[in-house]
Amino acid sequence: MRELMPAARAAQESIFSVMSRQAVQYGAVNLGQGFPADPPPSFLVDAARAALGHFDQYSPPAGLPALREAIGADLGVNAEDVVVTCGATEALSVLAQCLYGPGNEVLMLEPVFDVYLPQARLAGATPVTVPMTLTGQGWAVDIAAVRAAVTERTTALLLNTPYNPTGTAFSDDELRQLVMLAREHDLWIISDEVYDELYFGQKPTSPRTLAPERTFTVGSAGKRLESTGWRVGWIACPPGLAAQVTGVRQYGSFCAPMPLQAAVAQGLRQARQEGYYQQLREKYQVRMHLLAGGLRALSATVQEPRGTYFLTVQHPTWDAFTLVRQGVAVIPGSAFYPVHDCPAGLFRAAFCKSTLEIERALEHLSHVSCA
Amino acid sequence: MRELMPAARAAQESIFSVMSRQAVQYGAVNLGQGFPADPPPSFLVDAARAALGHFDQYSPPAGLPALREAIGADLGVNAEDVVVTCGATEALSVLAQCLYGPGNEVLMLEPVFDVYLPQARLAGATPVTVPMTLTGQGWAVDIAAVRAAVTERTTALLLNTPYNPTGTAFSDDELRQLVMLAREHDLWIISDEVYDELYFGQKPTSPRTLAPERTFTVGSAGKRLESTGWRVGWIACPPGLAAQVTGVRQYGSFCAPMPLQAAVAQGLRQARQEGYYQQLREKYQVRMHLLAGGLRALSATVQEPRGTYFLTVQHPTWDAFTLVRQGVAVIPGSAFYPVHDCPAGLFRAAFCKSTLEIERALEHLSHVSCA
Repeated sequence: MRELMPAARAAQESIFSVMSRQAVQYGAVNLGQGFPADPPPSFLVDAARAALGHFDQYSPPAGLPALREAIGADLGVNAEDVVVTCGATEALSVLAQCLYGPGNEVLMLEPVFDVYLPQARLAGATPVTVPMTLTGQGWAVDIAAVRAAVTERTTALLLNTPYNPTGTAFSDDELRQLVMLAREHDLWIISDEVYDELYFGQKPTSPRTLAPERTFTVGSAGKRLESTGWRVGWIACPPGLAAQVTGVRQYGSFCAPMPLQAAVAQGLRQARQEGYYQQLREKYQVRMHLLAGGLRALSATVQEPRGTYFLTVQHPTWDAFTLVRQGVAVIPGSAFYPVHDCPAGLFRAAFCKSTLEIERALEHLSHVSCA
Repeated sequence: MRELMPAARAAQESIFSVMSRQAVQYGAVNLGQGFPADPPPSFLVDAARAALGHFDQYSPPAGLPALREAIGADLGVNAEDVVVTCGATEALSVLAQCLYGPGNEVLMLEPVFDVYLPQARLAGATPVTVPMTLTGQGWAVDIAAVRAAVTERTTALLLNTPYNPTGTAFSDDELRQLVMLAREHDLWIISDEVYDELYFGQKPTSPRTLAPERTFTVGSAGKRLESTGWRVGWIACPPGLAAQVTGVRQYGSFCAPMPLQAAVAQGLRQARQEGYYQQLREKYQVRMHLLAGGLRALSATVQEPRGTYFLTVQHPTWDAFTLVRQGVAVIPGSAFYPVHDCPAGLFRAAFCKSTLEIERALEHLSHVSCA
């Protein structure tokens, strides 16, 4: 028999799925995959229940008009520049097909979210990663290294802010330098901002506000509204490009799930009106401090996050595949370093879990670290 | 500014979206895009309402295990060979990425569903179409022409049965010859069977039953359960290949909408138990005869369908863009003929609309045809 294409033969089960499966297998607390322990807000669930039976057939490929309006109003962009997708993963996949192809390079930072590289390769392009620096001061962008990595074939710069897994958000100074570089070399900027409402302290700057003419902002209801399985994501395109992006998007999954689009259209406005995101941030700040403090008490080095619901932590003797058998699933840092060497003893731990789960995880880890 | 990739610049709004938009604009009855006038069955809507608030986070990329079980039981395949996707469009897109790439050709029949060609091109492959014959006896496959179109670069044969837009289903003899050809040249068979429960008379044969070792069967809850906007589709893979297909699938949209997956898992079993598909066929058979009879009374030539909820019709003086202004949206046959010449005066009309809509459309057409 014929073989499948190389991309299929090379594709592997993601570390997130692997660790979630092992967490179930060993009865471990799952601080690995980033799905929230809490359900979506009741106003969102109610809106979806009401939409079912009324919004059940295809939407236009660009999305339900009411949802494009709601996203536009929320982000401060025009509704006609918004394209709705089946989650942020599809948004990134569509942009890969629209923005680069054979002979092109796309720049991204490392540690890197697992889908960025294979999506670039499926589009026929070459991903080029530049490692972040990690010191006692935490994570930082090596701007000189990014600049040195640009070639004549580079067509896009793929950023993630707030940044999974580092928990950082780019400073205004870092962003200014990155935008300057993108302008010098006429690079597209893809800005993955699925954690845009999950930050601690001042709201991070969106690259779009600095370079609206070249920035594609990717977002999702999944993280904002605790509904990672609903598959309602979006792209805010530079003015004038949404029709072409929609043209490619329609060949991927045609449209996003209609009843859930209708619910999110209502939920985005209600979340803003009711101060839901502020409550979400307060909830996660408590859990972040619980996890970070507990890990430090176990002599681990914690990089305290400015955003996302993840933190990175270093411990010289831990091993993720041993930890999961001893009751705690985390993601090994090496999963985010497909090209360069991973800093020693690095892990990503999620705190979008219940307080009880975090306490149980810390209890299990206390036995491991004493061993 | 840089331009988007050629695939994005070439992408156009689908004729289905265009005609739906114009139908709204001119207040026309929409016999164009194939979305049902009726809502999903209440048992399915109820199941989704119950799932919301409980099944809201990521499923594994291959799908919710209970849904893979339900699809496997329904199709008579093993659950581990099933991969769940965001609708059949994504299933076809994933298979394009898995089965062909640069230098490969994929064979398909013409008239051709609009996404097949661009999906093959996005994967880097060359689509090759073989025209169906249309005579007074209706549509037929020209097996000799298919055989003549196979080259050393051909890797897959893309079939659609029941067939949109022709409304045909392949006869057992046609299928036997196509399968023989696929075996001789070691071709994959992609069988798009989204209308598998929509047939009149004897149930059409699925290519999988004749060539399970090389057939990928694509299906969807959209047409079976009147929920085209829910985006729950699937691939039944030849044994042993689902893991590789899932590997590619996870980079597209990661997973299908979780609460709707949970509902469809329940709905597929209930539909079978309650004889829902039989009722669906009876409903559409009445509407098909209403539309076909009405069109014949207007001196149109109707190819009466064996399946799907479409029929093709020929009328020498009609024009789709004129008809929509006069109250009836249909799809011009040329939309399904991107390569070869379309038979004269051919249109696709959908009868998944209410009896009242079909009657109103016939009334409008009677004025047009008298003009």
